[in-house]
Amino acid sequence: MHPFAKNSAGSVAALGEEKLIAAIRRWLGSASPRAPFGIGDDCAVLPASPLRRLITVDPVIYPRHFNDAVPPRDVGAKLLKRNLSDLAAMGGRPAAAVLALTLDARTSLVWLEQFYRGLAASARKYRVPIVGGDVAQADGTVAASLTLLGEAAGARIVTRTGARRGDWIFVTGELGASLPTRHHVTFQPRLAEGAWLARQSGVHAMMDLSDGLAKDLRALTPPRCLPAISAAALPLRRTADVRGALTDGEDYELVFALASRADREKFAATWRRAFPRTRLTCLGHFAAAGAVPADAIDLSAYRGYEHLQR
Amino acid sequence: MHPFAKNSAGSVAALGEEKLIAAIRRWLGSASPRAPFGIGDDCAVLPASPLRRLITVDPVIYPRHFNDAVPPRDVGAKLLKRNLSDLAAMGGRPAAAVLALTLDARTSLVWLEQFYRGLAASARKYRVPIVGGDVAQADGTVAASLTLLGEAAGARIVTRTGARRGDWIFVTGELGASLPTRHHVTFQPRLAEGAWLARQSGVHAMMDLSDGLAKDLRALTPPRCLPAISAAALPLRRTADVRGALTDGEDYELVFALASRADREKFAATWRRAFPRTRLTCLGHFAAAGAVPADAIDLSAYRGYEHLQR
Repeated sequence: MHPFAKNSAGSVAALGEEKLIAAIRRWLGSASPRAPFGIGDDCAVLPASPLRRLITVDPVIYPRHFNDAVPPRDVGAKLLKRNLSDLAAMGGRPAAAVLALTLDARTSLVWLEQFYRGLAASARKYRVPIVGGDVAQADGTVAASLTLLGEAAGARIVTRTGARRGDWIFVTGELGASLPTRHHVTFQPRLAEGAWLARQSGVHAMMDLSDGLAKDLRALTPPRCLPAISAAALPLRRTADVRGALTDGEDYELVFALASRADREKFAATWRRAFPRTRLTCLGHFAAAGAVPADAIDLSAYRGYEHLQR
Repeated sequence: MHPFAKNSAGSVAALGEEKLIAAIRRWLGSASPRAPFGIGDDCAVLPASPLRRLITVDPVIYPRHFNDAVPPRDVGAKLLKRNLSDLAAMGGRPAAAVLALTLDARTSLVWLEQFYRGLAASARKYRVPIVGGDVAQADGTVAASLTLLGEAAGARIVTRTGARRGDWIFVTGELGASLPTRHHVTFQPRLAEGAWLARQSGVHAMMDLSDGLAKDLRALTPPRCLPAISAAALPLRRTADVRGALTDGEDYELVFALASRADREKFAATWRRAFPRTRLTCLGHFAAAGAVPADAIDLSAYRGYEHLQR
């Protein structure tokens, strides 16, 4: 669906600010608590919590992150799930979200309602109250930026830093071909898996995959090391090839480093009991820079998704 | 300064994503803590706090909220201060902020550096660590959305709801002519004043003024009441007239309802001791809808800043 209305009667400008905000509250329904805990005051109020807090922000922008072929319900759901994937990567659980919208005055009310209904359905599913937001106007723009607040699900938060030489490299799910398979809108953020992994002391570092393994894995690699992974080990999504698995991006899977001394077989067996439906693959290990096996993929030959290009 | 570079060598695209993020960390300097507490991981980590949390989000968008005449340092500072004003209006104090940027590939690095340096200076002044963010690309856009986290400064949070019939209407500072006087970039968010007001039990409701008193005051007005304020009482900013004081917007002052039984003289005297340099004005009171004095301004004849217009 195209985000701009064919005639001005169906646009956000026809409704005006006050009625639009009332409509947004209606569309969000039970996903949005009442003021002062939700929309309608200068700030939203969240209860105190004895846990460490996590915060992340990610946008969806037309036509960069979605186009007319993506149903607006999916756009709304994807916006929340992208952020939940970042939270999963630290072993966190969601607490609340706020949404900043930037809309052209011609933005279609039908499109916007579907966007909000998709966001609300996803917010209910993952128990994330949408507590506030802002609507601003800009010519030619349909963009939404969601800030997600979460908290540590357990005693430990797992960062990208901490992998050591020799650590095994594991990945959840499958990689590549996210767009043609619609994985980029149908994916389930790995919240339960991330929280479970954060409880395993052998998990040294973790992140989620958004720009492709070849690019993202750099952030997890210990100093003076390189990832030694073999092409045969890559869990290819249907229709994906090796290049796609390394560079397509939008996988929204977790990649993590497991201590070299860990019993991989026992770890995998425990995983299968906890998550019988989530595939887990050992891709290889972090090798000393001078000791990478000859059959390992040269990841420097692949580029993941690069932001800010001409 | 125009936000787009004259030649591609001076643009964000010439730098590329990785180097741009490194530059942003450099520009923010001490305003941005290290990962995992700041930029560089899937989420930023904030320490636990026993206080209720507050959250608000507001953007600045070119050319709607700033134009080539506004120095980029002021744009960065204004973005943070707009959000701090919302926090002040609840009686909160800041904890951390994240920034979502949307940039055209042609965005000037000089412009962006000045924007960040202005944001960083303001973040240091108001002690708001910039803990994370996101940079996305969109043609023709220069926009920044800041999400501010705060917490209750004291035992009490003041909302927009709670004013009663007969309550006095007070406002801090002066109103109108925000653009020509550059108040919209030089203003100081009323954080200390807001926290102090939240501790006064006679303060029934509070909000900040962003779209003009005529429009904003509606949100503070109790059911079946109308604000009874006289034009003579309005604290006009230099060059402002009555219409401007009611409708110009971007005042970033606090308006609040004080219990009708409160001793106004004593309250004003206590205020002057606490804030000798911040003007405080009683504008009038909330009258029953049928009992508005004849000399009161008919606020329905004035419109504040309306978002989402054609």
